[in-house]
Amino acid sequence: MYQEIMKERKAQIESEFSKIKSQLPDGDFKDIFMYPIEAGGKRVRPIILLETVKMLGGNLEEAMHFALALEMIHTYSLVHDDLPCMDDDELRRGKPTTHVIFGEGNAVLVGDALLNYAPELMIKGVKTMREPLHGIEAMETIMNASGVHGMILGQVYDIENENKSLAIEAVRKINALKTSQLIEAAFVAGGHLAVCSAKDIETLRSIGRHLGISFQIQDDILDVTSDVEHLGKPIGSDKKNMKRTYVDILGIDACKSEVMQRTEEAKKLLGSLNGDSAFLVALFDYLASRIS
Amino acid sequence: MYQEIMKERKAQIESEFSKIKSQLPDGDFKDIFMYPIEAGGKRVRPIILLETVKMLGGNLEEAMHFALALEMIHTYSLVHDDLPCMDDDELRRGKPTTHVIFGEGNAVLVGDALLNYAPELMIKGVKTMREPLHGIEAMETIMNASGVHGMILGQVYDIENENKSLAIEAVRKINALKTSQLIEAAFVAGGHLAVCSAKDIETLRSIGRHLGISFQIQDDILDVTSDVEHLGKPIGSDKKNMKRTYVDILGIDACKSEVMQRTEEAKKLLGSLNGDSAFLVALFDYLASRIS
Repeated sequence: MYQEIMKERKAQIESEFSKIKSQLPDGDFKDIFMYPIEAGGKRVRPIILLETVKMLGGNLEEAMHFALALEMIHTYSLVHDDLPCMDDDELRRGKPTTHVIFGEGNAVLVGDALLNYAPELMIKGVKTMREPLHGIEAMETIMNASGVHGMILGQVYDIENENKSLAIEAVRKINALKTSQLIEAAFVAGGHLAVCSAKDIETLRSIGRHLGISFQIQDDILDVTSDVEHLGKPIGSDKKNMKRTYVDILGIDACKSEVMQRTEEAKKLLGSLNGDSAFLVALFDYLASRIS
Repeated sequence: MYQEIMKERKAQIESEFSKIKSQLPDGDFKDIFMYPIEAGGKRVRPIILLETVKMLGGNLEEAMHFALALEMIHTYSLVHDDLPCMDDDELRRGKPTTHVIFGEGNAVLVGDALLNYAPELMIKGVKTMREPLHGIEAMETIMNASGVHGMILGQVYDIENENKSLAIEAVRKINALKTSQLIEAAFVAGGHLAVCSAKDIETLRSIGRHLGISFQIQDDILDVTSDVEHLGKPIGSDKKNMKRTYVDILGIDACKSEVMQRTEEAKKLLGSLNGDSAFLVALFDYLASRIS
């Protein structure tokens, strides 16, 4: 059941991306622009946003613009992060990274284009909504999460601290910004789109925080325990980039137990909200035990 | 009179940027983020937006968020355009470019941060407006102008055609996207913010188109006739980057006459709108005869 919905949502998201592709100006850039989107991925963020809206009784069609925008922002951040002047990674999702195939100039432009497209898409969404002001709140949530007070700040700290010995607090701070912010935004934007109360928004934020941290810890675990075939990128890339991870500092066992603990906490909070949370519960369990 | 207003507007815009700086997270990135903004510039786009709103009787305070956002988008595009993997320019506005001082990784991030900040600022603006739906129109105008159907597409064509012999139509198309779109957006967004009619919006778009093209031709003229001291960047950079310009194809005299002709046309169209256009007329004349 869970896997069917997951597959269906993924297909739905990818079909929406195809529609976007068909509306892009003709020429080579169309394929370059879509390359990192079409390279795949779990689509965790847009699925969380859509399923949060569904659980809370909101309008899924209206929510789609915001879900796609969130995935575009996540994708642009990977494209720029993989550049030689950043993490210099050549493999992602089992495929060569954008700059490896299309050159660095195009990779910079594709990232810019994806980041610019996200608000364009959300504005389009807002304009068709029955309650546009809630759409504005959702858009603000997403853009703030990806900006200088969110993901980009995490990226900045990450660069500043490469090659430095960090305490666990610093690692937590960097990851809370770099990874958790967009995942939190998926829940909170979903809440705004479903027009829920300020109290429920705060609950959604806490769920997103637990899930975001647990997601990053699981990533760090996989970076040392998985293999390139499952992961789609070289293992040990954190070590190569001289990044301190949760695993370095806490050890694998403590990491695994934190993932479990936060997943349970997130599920408990989810249970306090109205609506059918079965799919999200299953998603949380999947994320905690994923191998890629 | 014209020069006083120009100076005052510039000071006002720069003081708003200082306020933004003071609200950024503490640390080195604050200075890196603001470096390309503080490097100066004529602030033509935000001044056009504000003066269009003023001429049409709109609210200047509400318009400021949009003016600053437009300048941030223009600035991010320069930071990324100057990167070694793009035009590889080391001097801009008489100062070393962002990547020369802070490294390429930081220059990519600063550009991303500025591009992300622009919609954040406009959303903030929309939320305080008495008529938020007109703010959404202004935001859409600006984000569409800078995206894959606008400025970024121009950038893509520019890269694709480097080193190629282009006909005048191709040069016009590239520049219409790369330069004119943001200048057009300054007028059209100003029109939306001042809640003007669809007919007036079209007039503003035509004014922007004439002024944008004339602005780019003047840039091409200065690239061969000015000097590094006035221009703040090396002259002959188009030739270095193997770009075909208006001057290459049409010659200096035809270029100068097109600048004059389009400026007069823009002034005539301006005269057909209600409101005091004296400042914008003076600005158009200044732009047509500028030496930097």
